Amino acid sequence: MLIRIDLQSDEPIYVQLFNQIVEGIASGALRPGETLPSVRSLAADLGINLHTVGKAYTQLRQEGYIQIHRQKGALVQPGPMPEADGEFFGKLEKRLRPLVAEAICRGVDERRFCEVCGRLYRQFGKGGVGA
Amino acid sequence: MLIRIDLQSDEPIYVQLFNQIVEGIASGALRPGETLPSVRSLAADLGINLHTVGKAYTQLRQEGYIQIHRQKGALVQPGPMPEADGEFFGKLEKRLRPLVAEAICRGVDERRFCEVCGRLYRQFGKGGVGA
Repeated sequence: MLIRIDLQSDEPIYVQLFNQIVEGIASGALRPGETLPSVRSLAADLGINLHTVGKAYTQLRQEGYIQIHRQKGALVQPGPMPEADGEFFGKLEKRLRPLVAEAICRGVDERRFCEVCGRLYRQFGKGGVGA
Repeated sequence: MLIRIDLQSDEPIYVQLFNQIVEGIASGALRPGETLPSVRSLAADLGINLHTVGKAYTQLRQEGYIQIHRQKGALVQPGPMPEADGEFFGKLEKRLRPLVAEAICRGVDERRFCEVCGRLYRQFGKGGVGA
């Protein structure tokens, strides 16, 4: 899976990395149990700091998307993904709020907004988790 | 309207400020043509850097949410808000993508995802733009 980092973006690099790995899992580009590159090699490949990759991996592990083994290294969660609990939905709402607010200001109604979400679901749906 | 800045957040402060002003417009807490505090006074009130507030105001102006007059200072866009064009939808999709990916990984289907969006729409809907 190809990872692209935008150094000009306001989005922290570790967040970009976190998101792309989660998107890889959602799309099926990364399969359950698949080995991820080591922190060291990914940092070298992307030309970014070791600690930045480490931070992304740590957060991915904390949220249950990957496992980190002393010997095998990092791998995509081979078992079931963590469930969507109240905490997940609370965070989701918090992150969706500014997007919905901008859409409302620009006259985008709920139906059109959900159409965009649906299109993304279909993009990931091909070969993704649970497909 | 009360603005809260979370200094512990990974989200840049100017983004937090930008989002909260847009949310204020969407909810109707900030009305079209309403005057916003000056950069200087808002920075002092929030205990943050002048340039951080300036950056948020500049982006709000560039995206058409506010106007900045030499004499009257900053005010909420009194006329029509900028329309949702292709660029807007492109950015929206880019920002929604990681949220949809996380939801898919955790088994949240499109219907449940859209329910969360709908709930946010209804929260803003009370007295908001176009209400």
